[in-house]
Amino acid sequence: MAAHPKSLGIVGGGQLGRMIALAAMELDVKVVVVGRGDPCGFLESGGSDLLNADDVASLAACDGATIEVEEVSVEGLERIPRIVPRAAHVRLIQDKGLQKEFFSDRGIPTADFSVSTNASIRGFPVVQKLRRGGYDGRGVKVLRSPEDAAFSGECLLEDLIDVKAELSVIVARDETTAKTYPCVEQVFTPDHLAAYIVSPAPRPERLEAERLASRVAEEMDFVGLLAVEFFLEDGTGRLLVNEVAPRPHNSGHHTIEANATSQFHQITRIALGLALGDTTQTRPFAATVNLLGGQDSGVPEYQNLEKLLATPDVYPHIYGKTTVSPNRKMGHVTVLADDLPTLRAKVDFVRANSKVIARPP
Amino acid sequence: MAAHPKSLGIVGGGQLGRMIALAAMELDVKVVVVGRGDPCGFLESGGSDLLNADDVASLAACDGATIEVEEVSVEGLERIPRIVPRAAHVRLIQDKGLQKEFFSDRGIPTADFSVSTNASIRGFPVVQKLRRGGYDGRGVKVLRSPEDAAFSGECLLEDLIDVKAELSVIVARDETTAKTYPCVEQVFTPDHLAAYIVSPAPRPERLEAERLASRVAEEMDFVGLLAVEFFLEDGTGRLLVNEVAPRPHNSGHHTIEANATSQFHQITRIALGLALGDTTQTRPFAATVNLLGGQDSGVPEYQNLEKLLATPDVYPHIYGKTTVSPNRKMGHVTVLADDLPTLRAKVDFVRANSKVIARPP
Repeated sequence: MAAHPKSLGIVGGGQLGRMIALAAMELDVKVVVVGRGDPCGFLESGGSDLLNADDVASLAACDGATIEVEEVSVEGLERIPRIVPRAAHVRLIQDKGLQKEFFSDRGIPTADFSVSTNASIRGFPVVQKLRRGGYDGRGVKVLRSPEDAAFSGECLLEDLIDVKAELSVIVARDETTAKTYPCVEQVFTPDHLAAYIVSPAPRPERLEAERLASRVAEEMDFVGLLAVEFFLEDGTGRLLVNEVAPRPHNSGHHTIEANATSQFHQITRIALGLALGDTTQTRPFAATVNLLGGQDSGVPEYQNLEKLLATPDVYPHIYGKTTVSPNRKMGHVTVLADDLPTLRAKVDFVRANSKVIARPP
Repeated sequence: MAAHPKSLGIVGGGQLGRMIALAAMELDVKVVVVGRGDPCGFLESGGSDLLNADDVASLAACDGATIEVEEVSVEGLERIPRIVPRAAHVRLIQDKGLQKEFFSDRGIPTADFSVSTNASIRGFPVVQKLRRGGYDGRGVKVLRSPEDAAFSGECLLEDLIDVKAELSVIVARDETTAKTYPCVEQVFTPDHLAAYIVSPAPRPERLEAERLASRVAEEMDFVGLLAVEFFLEDGTGRLLVNEVAPRPHNSGHHTIEANATSQFHQITRIALGLALGDTTQTRPFAATVNLLGGQDSGVPEYQNLEKLLATPDVYPHIYGKTTVSPNRKMGHVTVLADDLPTLRAKVDFVRANSKVIARPP
């Protein structure tokens, strides 16, 4: 390739789009975004409606394009000549029923399931997932008896797994090559709230998860970034694929500081047909702590940012959202360390000291 | 500090401003730029004329401000309440005569000199430097006899030093603390052209250079980033301060990938009154190769970018300039390595394979 590519389209205007754009701009790539969102407000807009095929298809004029969210118009994607991931993969992943059927057809281990409507739920406990539109835990319910209120509509019923750990692997893949980021683990608080992500996952099963994630991407013949989420089943030790996401992922934010090529540089490279970058983690351990909204809504104020910045190996990121609401992702903090005890101590410090409060507008 | 700072003003719209902005945006800092320049075209403009006091003073509305070039209106800087570096330091550094007098008054080793006009040149060879406006080697001449054409106007006459090496140290300093980046060396080709910068400088004198640079910043009571350039004199082994720059510097671009806190994150922190970041270099060796314009002017095309991106530990940066002209800085490439021979081999590869050519507009 002689000249360097000039423009990258992103479907979605959230924090993932913002972090892709900041990476792409290092190569002087002009970024155009379809979708509303403060985090990408500084970028050229190609339209505001992710679900409108014409808005999405406006990115056909770009040298390359990608998505930062999967709930987009697939018809629009189909009209973009160079889009990663491919429209067909987004269509498959948008429907958790099709996604699960793909796994079971290919012999990829996953929790037993059936595709159903709520009318036909039999056997409890069971995990009910809406086939479409759920993310970040929304659209998922555990039903323990017929008295528990179920979602209505097309859904997936899955066996309730006794989860020992939640692992995740991001696979970067172009037409000829695949590279895997180290497997990470979502660590929970004693009361089962997500606390932080640690990379690599401090468990022997991580290597099997990396192999399995590569296999999933290969079976799909996927191009782009594929985040593969796993349950490690207690007792049996089985690794079960929970679901996949066809884009940069919350479990890869630490790669900005911790890896030779961040997931955001990586998707820029893949979308523009450039070489895959090295995924090696360059410090022994890394963690990501989310900065979430508290109980109130309003104008965000980031407390103790000064304290975080004064701590070596601690890197705050703020996404540029103008309002905060309960549990909204407002930013994240990366922590690096040479050993696990130090990592955990710094993570505790960050968790104790970082707080997003809401001021009246 | 409770909330996080919201806006950063930058005087100057070139590549240094762009790289500061990309760092600042990770903390959701809104960046406003005074000065024309493609690299900062995506940012909010506070005016186009660096030398106009009113344009520069428009940044007084920002929570903090800094400069990316020293030829700016000092009167404008004086009207900005929180500006780093201080206006008085910029005034001192703009005039190479005052700068040299400061060094000699404080006993900071520097080449012997006199302040003069060209009418009074006696004694050859001598280095003639214009007191104002020179940079990147412009405004500097070696005069070997009265026949050599001299600059007219206020100038500085310096002893011609027999230079063994050119070293540089960037000092980050706020009101209470100073941190020094490792000393780097500018490496030249056999025919005396700048080839690349290596960090740390592979010479024992680097530690003395770091101490001396700290002392210069301390004597000045400088706040901001101070790049201190040294000559290492052949024969005597003396380290002589050549000149200082009060801003992010070409000799610190590798810090984006190679150091815990890049020089661009660092100046953002200092300008906004946030804690200084750790300056530790996280890989044993780093180098910067400039991407310069060739013999022609036109629309830039970056050759072999694909080849560079396919090489681990090689990180190209392109500054977003819409036209290239001879020797114009269009970008740079950072190279990382665990040992010097590997670094040099990768630098040679980058130098052999990176070329900016000019297409007709």
